Amino acid sequence: MATQTPKRLRHLTSINDLRIDEIEALFALADRYLDELSDPHIPYRIGRSLTEAQGSLLATLFYEPSTRTRLSFETAMIRLGGKSISSADPATSSAAKGESLADTVRVASNYADVLVIRHPRDGAARFAADYASVPVINGGDGAHEHPTQTLCDLFTLRRENKDLNRLNVAVSGDLKGSRTIHSFVYALARFGAEITLMPAGGMDLPEHVYWRLKHDYQHTPTRPSDVADPEVDAVYVTADQPHQLALIAEAGAVVDESSKKKSRAKRAIDAVYVTRFQKERWANKDQDYPTVDANFLKGKEFSHTSVMHPLPRVGELDVAFDSDPRAVYFRQAAYGVPIRMALIAGLLELSNAHALETFEAGFRPAQYVLYDQPNGVGDRCVNANCIVHDPLDGKYARNKFHLIEADRPRLRCHYCENDVTHFFVAHRKHKTYAPAASGLHVSKTQANTVFFNDAKSAEDAGYTLQPPRHAPRA
Amino acid sequence: MATQTPKRLRHLTSINDLRIDEIEALFALADRYLDELSDPHIPYRIGRSLTEAQGSLLATLFYEPSTRTRLSFETAMIRLGGKSISSADPATSSAAKGESLADTVRVASNYADVLVIRHPRDGAARFAADYASVPVINGGDGAHEHPTQTLCDLFTLRRENKDLNRLNVAVSGDLKGSRTIHSFVYALARFGAEITLMPAGGMDLPEHVYWRLKHDYQHTPTRPSDVADPEVDAVYVTADQPHQLALIAEAGAVVDESSKKKSRAKRAIDAVYVTRFQKERWANKDQDYPTVDANFLKGKEFSHTSVMHPLPRVGELDVAFDSDPRAVYFRQAAYGVPIRMALIAGLLELSNAHALETFEAGFRPAQYVLYDQPNGVGDRCVNANCIVHDPLDGKYARNKFHLIEADRPRLRCHYCENDVTHFFVAHRKHKTYAPAASGLHVSKTQANTVFFNDAKSAEDAGYTLQPPRHAPRA
Amino acid sequence: MATQTPKRLRHLTSINDLRIDEIEALFALADRYLDELSDPHIPYRIGRSLTEAQGSLLATLFYEPSTRTRLSFETAMIRLGGKSISSADPATSSAAKGESLADTVRVASNYADVLVIRHPRDGAARFAADYASVPVINGGDGAHEHPTQTLCDLFTLRRENKDLNRLNVAVSGDLKGSRTIHSFVYALARFGAEITLMPAGGMDLPEHVYWRLKHDYQHTPTRPSDVADPEVDAVYVTADQPHQLALIAEAGAVVDESSKKKSRAKRAIDAVYVTRFQKERWANKDQDYPTVDANFLKGKEFSHTSVMHPLPRVGELDVAFDSDPRAVYFRQAAYGVPIRMALIAGLLELSNAHALETFEAGFRPAQYVLYDQPNGVGDRCVNANCIVHDPLDGKYARNKFHLIEADRPRLRCHYCENDVTHFFVAHRKHKTYAPAASGLHVSKTQANTVFFNDAKSAEDAGYTLQPPRHAPRA
Repeated sequence: MATQTPKRLRHLTSINDLRIDEIEALFALADRYLDELSDPHIPYRIGRSLTEAQGSLLATLFYEPSTRTRLSFETAMIRLGGKSISSADPATSSAAKGESLADTVRVASNYADVLVIRHPRDGAARFAADYASVPVINGGDGAHEHPTQTLCDLFTLRRENKDLNRLNVAVSGDLKGSRTIHSFVYALARFGAEITLMPAGGMDLPEHVYWRLKHDYQHTPTRPSDVADPEVDAVYVTADQPHQLALIAEAGAVVDESSKKKSRAKRAIDAVYVTRFQKERWANKDQDYPTVDANFLKGKEFSHTSVMHPLPRVGELDVAFDSDPRAVYFRQAAYGVPIRMALIAGLLELSNAHALETFEAGFRPAQYVLYDQPNGVGDRCVNANCIVHDPLDGKYARNKFHLIEADRPRLRCHYCENDVTHFFVAHRKHKTYAPAASGLHVSKTQANTVFFNDAKSAEDAGYTLQPPRHAPRA
Repeated sequence: MATQTPKRLRHLTSINDLRIDEIEALFALADRYLDELSDPHIPYRIGRSLTEAQGSLLATLFYEPSTRTRLSFETAMIRLGGKSISSADPATSSAAKGESLADTVRVASNYADVLVIRHPRDGAARFAADYASVPVINGGDGAHEHPTQTLCDLFTLRRENKDLNRLNVAVSGDLKGSRTIHSFVYALARFGAEITLMPAGGMDLPEHVYWRLKHDYQHTPTRPSDVADPEVDAVYVTADQPHQLALIAEAGAVVDESSKKKSRAKRAIDAVYVTRFQKERWANKDQDYPTVDANFLKGKEFSHTSVMHPLPRVGELDVAFDSDPRAVYFRQAAYGVPIRMALIAGLLELSNAHALETFEAGFRPAQYVLYDQPNGVGDRCVNANCIVHDPLDGKYARNKFHLIEADRPRLRCHYCENDVTHFFVAHRKHKTYAPAASGLHVSKTQANTVFFNDAKSAEDAGYTLQPPRHAPRA
Repeated sequence: MATQTPKRLRHLTSINDLRIDEIEALFALADRYLDELSDPHIPYRIGRSLTEAQGSLLATLFYEPSTRTRLSFETAMIRLGGKSISSADPATSSAAKGESLADTVRVASNYADVLVIRHPRDGAARFAADYASVPVINGGDGAHEHPTQTLCDLFTLRRENKDLNRLNVAVSGDLKGSRTIHSFVYALARFGAEITLMPAGGMDLPEHVYWRLKHDYQHTPTRPSDVADPEVDAVYVTADQPHQLALIAEAGAVVDESSKKKSRAKRAIDAVYVTRFQKERWANKDQDYPTVDANFLKGKEFSHTSVMHPLPRVGELDVAFDSDPRAVYFRQAAYGVPIRMALIAGLLELSNAHALETFEAGFRPAQYVLYDQPNGVGDRCVNANCIVHDPLDGKYARNKFHLIEADRPRLRCHYCENDVTHFFVAHRKHKTYAPAASGLHVSKTQANTVFFNDAKSAEDAGYTLQPPRHAPRA
């Protein structure tokens, strides 16, 4: 790319772009901002401003409706002493003229010192980072991740005096499409939390998120199928059905079997994380959705539970609960300001901040090797909502995958981080291909390795099936 | 509410939230800003900036289209040295995801130091103030009020060397739906002005506004029905019909009857206030609407009249009149900046400002006792456009009414300030109800008092009709 | 106009509002900003800010979708130390309520210190300048001009070490509707460049632009019809057809014939300027459009060509070309910041800037006499997209024309600068009219001169045909 720069850039496109010690450094800085700048009447509210970011400029490029996240970033920048520019409405922006995100990002990089991007496509932030010459912050990309919300969520629990290294958290609602949940459960697992999943019917965690929790972060959440009652869809309908509470208790108990010692502590739920029913993402807009209210939370295990919600809410969290001391969701929203101040300060290396370590490639060294092929060489990511399938940005996007050699091979899209286990590996020079599951990795040379989603694509591209080494031919 | 704060907060949701001496203090500060900061070439234009609001943050939350009011507030904050964040488009905000105003306000309170709200629902600003932890300024709420426009209007007249305590003002056009007019006539009445009403056909002042002028502020405006020609609808059609002028003269004469001494002075009209035909609010978009132009204003009583308009205009005020020295509407718009600077400075208690007095409840002690019942206890306000009928915010809104014991009892909604005279009062403990007009106030204890709009609602809620004390039973 | 001010105001509504020495002063200041403030890693990017515009306020009033231009102006103002307010979405602005641009500009003039206007109507910026009391910058008005883009384009060529006084530039694509091209070719001609036109089929330069290049700026661009192949529409279809290159070479050769000495140098193309196919402006959205890519640019004459594009692009410029060192379009976008900083600094007379000279009328003394008649006296400009035909602004707009007495008389609209050669001149007092081509200019007194587009209009307005002086009557 013409505008690529030798500067070592740091982006935040996934919560996993940050090391645990970096997250803790951000929390320490956010604490300090609250100490110095909080409203004398409201301890969790930043009420004064610094001047250390004077002359710095943040751009918010939002391709989806938002008030909270955008205003929260702008507020954070202003409280640091900086300014912001904003493209908040897709309909009045260059996107309406048919401009790709890649072009917009390259241009905006020459204006602002840090970019915040919200986009309906999974992986859009990571794709944008490929083209930016300033740090990119993911403000929510499709169903992929929303890492700054997670920083805010963890910081809230810390401010509520929860021990981040011993959390027991239940996550409720739309676990499938909620990017907030995906970032959150990764972070929880990395901090060593216990996680109980309470999905709405048909809205469980995606397989690839569950797999990563288990294999990359050594955590197995308690899933509905792990517990006694198999009627998952029926269980979480509303809080009028108290056996839900029992279920969570039982779920805790199941975990406890393996560790008698932790059993007592485990029963107390530190936080219930409620998510919005994102009607705009679901075909069946009238489906039942779990509701959290005082009745739901009457069990002893909830007596000190922080009830969290990324907001906005649309009915899944009873407004009558707002005055309950366990309702922390408005404080949670308020903490978005100091935590985003800390993040911006770290990325811009402001005087007060412990600068985030910068990496050559803009990211932590990948856990798995990156295979990078131009557009047209091999197949696209299978996720239809991945940024690579965008009519405009697809022209730019390369085929970037991580190859994971676990129990059975997995192919993970570099952008949206969706996995497939059924795929084909081809050798660009030998013009042969084989099913990934056969173990026949055609080439160890990344440049020669091409991936296909099905045999037909490989054949159409001129590759020939490589016969299995040990199996007898038919 | 979880975020309620002990801080004594001051809001501006109605022009009547300000005492006369506070309004005068704002004018004095605005004068001072003009003295110090005006453009050397344009005396009514603020052309330079202060730094005293550095680090302060204003948020504009606009749920209706606007350029003027929003930009005016942002300009005022910037001229004070502060910054602003803005949610200007309902379609790209959290509202599009179905978020209530109550939630948005609670979140935005944790970002900005002062909130300006424009909303299509009557009473939205007062409702928002219930949930805010920072000052709320009403930037226009439905057909209720637009108090900062009124501050700007009065300040304009003062700058035009009119004596605010002896004004004679005619207000023209849509007096029914124009929030600008409602705030303006309250203020005029409180300052002791004479008011002549010149409504478009069917667009007279709402009964409750007229009643308040008369009973709360001891002023009776000259109404079309007070004058000779009963054909009101026909009278105000266009300025081509010169008998309109005669009508106003006659109207003035009618007033004069009661005070021979003031008669001469009264005949001179200090200001004609023209309002936009708000097509978006009216079913019959093709109806005739009064037009003001040079011909209309040729009478002697208009020789020194300030012609005012809150803008935008759409034909009711002739563009050819713009060069007339009596046209003050562009200066009027310019004065929006210094007056809003003064208001923000007062609410934020900036160094230069005489801080507005802060009240425990966020408002001046109510003139009438407040009856406050939860949602579901008693009936809603009868005004269908009141914020309590919003599908989202209705879930939060309580049933708050002021009971006015005048000639006959009136029930005034705390939010939208619409009145009803036909209603029922019930006793929550005794489970009885009676028509308000019967004088049988069931309970003096506010907590036990419940209001219904009709007998059926009371019956349905389990209340029994209390027999009249003095009337014989049928 | 009531708000007209005695201050001598300077606007930028056309690139021709600036003298060559003023343009060079802006370039020198932009160079200085880059020297002082550029990003240490990216020399063409402004990465730090000044404080000299502290307290100054820029307003962007955008009536068309835009991200790049608006954010670029806001960035420039912020980098100077100032702030901005923005009305970016026509649908949420006063325009949605039916407000005219003239009113909006008069109001916004009282808020901000400089206005940037983008509008779909030709001539809107010049019209706005008539009503503004602060400098107006044209951010793009219909198909008329986009002068700050041109400043940015020329500055880019200068930064790429091209000699602005000896440029050889090819412009490609939509030369008809692209305001960017119109401003650019005027400036190129004035700097003495050679220009080769490469229009998409049916999208050649408008006749009036071509005429001005030739007569006002003494330049004749090489047009498709000047070269051998008459099949213009077929020639420029795609870059797959290499005879296109030959064509340009030939085109160059044609120019060279007249000057053997310049012939060598001329063959090298300094810049190819590619424009977006503005689908929103064209009825036939599926038409072929020339594409520029590496293949197109493989000829020797392109070996040091700067490939430019105002962006956004939608397919006419191959993304694979982005990594080619000749691709300067992202640097070009970056240069928008320092050049707009220089312009704002010049208009606001900031301490560091060589202030732009200010003129009585807000513009350079017109090359041709201005005839100014009220709305209704004479005919409107013939250009249907001219601001004078706007349903709202048309009420304000006067009939302002420049009368050009060249080979045959031309009438140029003051706002949109479209010409007509077939028109009628009438004498307001004598009540006679005559065809302009007859040479019978009815009056030398501007106030008495009225223009009509056809005889019928003149007759309908009560004028009588003046018999030709020398021709015998029929």
